[in-house]
Amino acid sequence: VVRTRTSPDHSVLVVHTDRPDNDFTALFRTLEEDPDSYLTGHRATFASAVGRSFYSQILPSNSVHLGWTSWSVQWTSRLPVDPTEHPGRLRPACCDLDTVCSAYARQAARDWHEFVAFRGRELCDGGRLVVMTLAVGEDGERGFGPLVAAISDTLAELRSAGVVTADEVGRMCLPIVGRSAADFREPFAPSGLFERLQIEHLEVFDGEDRFWARYQKDRDATTFGKQWAQFARASVFPSFAPALERPAAAADVFDQLEAGVATRLGAAPERTPIPLAHVVLVKRPRP
Amino acid sequence: VVRTRTSPDHSVLVVHTDRPDNDFTALFRTLEEDPDSYLTGHRATFASAVGRSFYSQILPSNSVHLGWTSWSVQWTSRLPVDPTEHPGRLRPACCDLDTVCSAYARQAARDWHEFVAFRGRELCDGGRLVVMTLAVGEDGERGFGPLVAAISDTLAELRSAGVVTADEVGRMCLPIVGRSAADFREPFAPSGLFERLQIEHLEVFDGEDRFWARYQKDRDATTFGKQWAQFARASVFPSFAPALERPAAAADVFDQLEAGVATRLGAAPERTPIPLAHVVLVKRPRP
Repeated sequence: VVRTRTSPDHSVLVVHTDRPDNDFTALFRTLEEDPDSYLTGHRATFASAVGRSFYSQILPSNSVHLGWTSWSVQWTSRLPVDPTEHPGRLRPACCDLDTVCSAYARQAARDWHEFVAFRGRELCDGGRLVVMTLAVGEDGERGFGPLVAAISDTLAELRSAGVVTADEVGRMCLPIVGRSAADFREPFAPSGLFERLQIEHLEVFDGEDRFWARYQKDRDATTFGKQWAQFARASVFPSFAPALERPAAAADVFDQLEAGVATRLGAAPERTPIPLAHVVLVKRPRP
Repeated sequence: VVRTRTSPDHSVLVVHTDRPDNDFTALFRTLEEDPDSYLTGHRATFASAVGRSFYSQILPSNSVHLGWTSWSVQWTSRLPVDPTEHPGRLRPACCDLDTVCSAYARQAARDWHEFVAFRGRELCDGGRLVVMTLAVGEDGERGFGPLVAAISDTLAELRSAGVVTADEVGRMCLPIVGRSAADFREPFAPSGLFERLQIEHLEVFDGEDRFWARYQKDRDATTFGKQWAQFARASVFPSFAPALERPAAAADVFDQLEAGVATRLGAAPERTPIPLAHVVLVKRPRP
């Protein structure tokens, strides 16, 4: 899309960012070898990576024309509550304990404030930042209910079977926060400007459950369960690894967890609510 | 050094480059955690990485102020000779077979030409590139003789003991080339300019053998052997891994190889010749 707006000789430098423990070798190999890579056939396109948390300034001020992040700012920068002190809350941001929930709400507010502030410095005048992340629906919907229930239920079974200990399950938590439209607007109040950034577009919508859409067509409940379980393994199981006493056991525990989640979701397919936010920020030139 | 010449607010973006299979996580962790990291205490200093071979253009044209490479351009971009066809030449660039040596000489010339050409595009006007690499001394000295002999000798022993097969040893090779002062000048002939780059400084010198210098003081032959063996393991043993039939055996083979090299060098300490080149190129503004 960017290339349709530039001459082929115009250099484009893409900077990928992730935490230091990301597998950057896999990233660079894919960029080099994948026929669909943006490096293929675009001579003046370049790739680089920054292995640092984006909850700090990671690129020079006024150096970025277009920022894009998806499925990342819903992870908090830190655990605001020690899971060993309030164990057994798989999704602490929306649990049964007000002190835990509000600690996560405060962390979410602080993280969004920091995230926007640092991106505001990094963006050039007129630069834009596109954010896709987990939202809280206008009806308070936080999404992913069936999946979280299936994980929780399978963990209880694995604990009974002695595959994992009660302590391990107690420590497992997903530091994920959804944000409401009001939460996204918060740093920009009251003037509408923050670090010279302005909200150009803000939309909270109900994301499509693609596995459900496919199930509606083929009525293949087994595949429906498997697809959600695979998604969970790739996206959230890694967060459980630090809770395990023997890290070497992780692959086996995750195999059984994935199988249990697949069985449960396949047994009673239902549509998963996925509240999403799409936010576009633009940096105004200095007045 | 760079920071002594800028205001503290002046942004500096450092781009580390290596092949895709480098461990970038280790790089980013070190940058984050090491108290001596250049990120520590320098607010406007930023780090990034490019996991692509530098025998191509890897950064936008006219975007680099200062390039620096050490101990890298002596590795050829590819194996110009299939080691299975001319087996048993541990250091093919200076071996007993003219066709092999000259294939390496041609590859070295092409690689240096490409390396300089691509860096010439990436550098800004007035930008400089500092290169430290293996040289060939004016007397034809190619260096590292005692080390290569110790590796070769240990490999023969490990082959006799059945630790490695004759085929495996035959395939092992170090695609390393030294270059003479004339080799470095070659792309710049006859005008002295190539891709607007000019040689500002070129020096071929006899590098210090620090392990030898230490041995001269403490006469500790065992440590002398161990230090050279450790150096070899870190810098050249990884090149032997693809030659092994069972990659899982690499650690064990390398343990024995390291021990053998340490014993041999410790038994008869001698100074290792290390011919080095120090080259500084500068990019002239467009006339």
